[in-house]
Amino acid sequence: MPSLRVALLQSSGRPGSVAANLKALDEAVARAADAGAGLLVTPEMFLTGYAIGADVSRLAEPADGEGADAVAEIASRYGVAVAYGYPERGERDEQAVVFNSVQLIGPDGTRLAGYRKTHLFGCYEHDLFTPGEQTVVQAELGGIRVGLMICYDVEFPENVRAHALAGTDLLLVPTAQMHPFQFVAESLVPVRAFENQMYVAYVNRTGPEGEFEFIGLSTLAGPDGIARTRAGRGEDLVVADVDAEFLAASREANPYLRDRRPGLYASLV
Amino acid sequence: MPSLRVALLQSSGRPGSVAANLKALDEAVARAADAGAGLLVTPEMFLTGYAIGADVSRLAEPADGEGADAVAEIASRYGVAVAYGYPERGERDEQAVVFNSVQLIGPDGTRLAGYRKTHLFGCYEHDLFTPGEQTVVQAELGGIRVGLMICYDVEFPENVRAHALAGTDLLLVPTAQMHPFQFVAESLVPVRAFENQMYVAYVNRTGPEGEFEFIGLSTLAGPDGIARTRAGRGEDLVVADVDAEFLAASREANPYLRDRRPGLYASLV
Repeated sequence: MPSLRVALLQSSGRPGSVAANLKALDEAVARAADAGAGLLVTPEMFLTGYAIGADVSRLAEPADGEGADAVAEIASRYGVAVAYGYPERGERDEQAVVFNSVQLIGPDGTRLAGYRKTHLFGCYEHDLFTPGEQTVVQAELGGIRVGLMICYDVEFPENVRAHALAGTDLLLVPTAQMHPFQFVAESLVPVRAFENQMYVAYVNRTGPEGEFEFIGLSTLAGPDGIARTRAGRGEDLVVADVDAEFLAASREANPYLRDRRPGLYASLV
Repeated sequence: MPSLRVALLQSSGRPGSVAANLKALDEAVARAADAGAGLLVTPEMFLTGYAIGADVSRLAEPADGEGADAVAEIASRYGVAVAYGYPERGERDEQAVVFNSVQLIGPDGTRLAGYRKTHLFGCYEHDLFTPGEQTVVQAELGGIRVGLMICYDVEFPENVRAHALAGTDLLLVPTAQMHPFQFVAESLVPVRAFENQMYVAYVNRTGPEGEFEFIGLSTLAGPDGIARTRAGRGEDLVVADVDAEFLAASREANPYLRDRRPGLYASLV
């Protein structure tokens, strides 16, 4: 059965400096490769920083932009897949808009999947970003079905359930989680993994940035609700394994998807 | 703003002996009244015990049966509402069936609401019970909108979300939770309270009963995901307050229901 070692890059980032963030990524992917990881996940908006305000329209790039090329070069040099957050330049109704996105680049540098945050958080994000319209975005990585989501999205049980129903084994959740919401990292993320019988990698920023105070506590939770690894509050790179055999056995023992009664949930949609 | 003190009766129960369970209830409601509680919640199948096997058809009674009358007498004598679990004799397609039910009796002895477990757990329950078909059952109690649910139901995020959308302030969840599922009491229940911005009272059996080993850990969690009270592993009676003012402020600060995007959740139904 396949297994995948995942590295979680908990980083403070350098707002506005794409070059500095790419240099930090290069160093982190090198360490992840040494640790045997097949995938590295960054926080939300890693490429540019989160607290860039109106600079977001200048710093945003398309999914195949220069930043993507640079990440692909790093990924293929080390043979490690990378999921990274960035502001994506796109179009909606023929207007230029910016999405809060995550892109998954394969270990050969191929762009495997891109997701646009569907549930924006608070006034700051609603001012800067246009919400995405597709809940479930997935890709295969070494026999594991990987799904993509961003920060606030995971706090809505409906979003993670949609991934479970679509067969996601490992949900990647780059985030920019702030004080005082440590409950999300410590309790909600493990519960999402348990109730949906999947692995969830929640990868946060850390430290102060503009008006925000990010709280770290990145974690990879298993389908038993137990954290396989958990970072502290500062910068950190932690690794943990996704085990498809354990996942299959856990799903057999906890048949939530089989025991659902969709006919009773009409009020949710 | 209204507030309601809730007593959680964590009990081992006496399987098959309704009289002994009613005596224990009488004593517990007396203590709850002394502690200023306006509502006492029992575990799942409190009236008869859980591990009664095929005796369930003999011990089951209609919602207005003798057990209900006895509970109503206790409730009105102390002026304390009681939510209790019991096997309910009913009909489905003109066949006599048994539901795994909870009934809420008001402080004046009036039967306020009855709920039939919709998500049965494992072979034992599927053999004994017929599932209910109504997700959301509510009643008003002292200005608080109270919802009813049973055990495994709460592990499905869809069920609790349906209650949140219907305005439930306090969700009562009599349960019969077994080893090794302490994660549900310790983590999942507080997350349900947080993600839905409500109070959740999860009231468990304790100790061995037939083939089962119940684990206690009854809890009342607030909309901040913090337990207001938590019982240990043995028999216990704990109380905590539901505060409508705190709930309103928490909902304002955590607008999950407003930020939902129902148009994206079609795959759930």
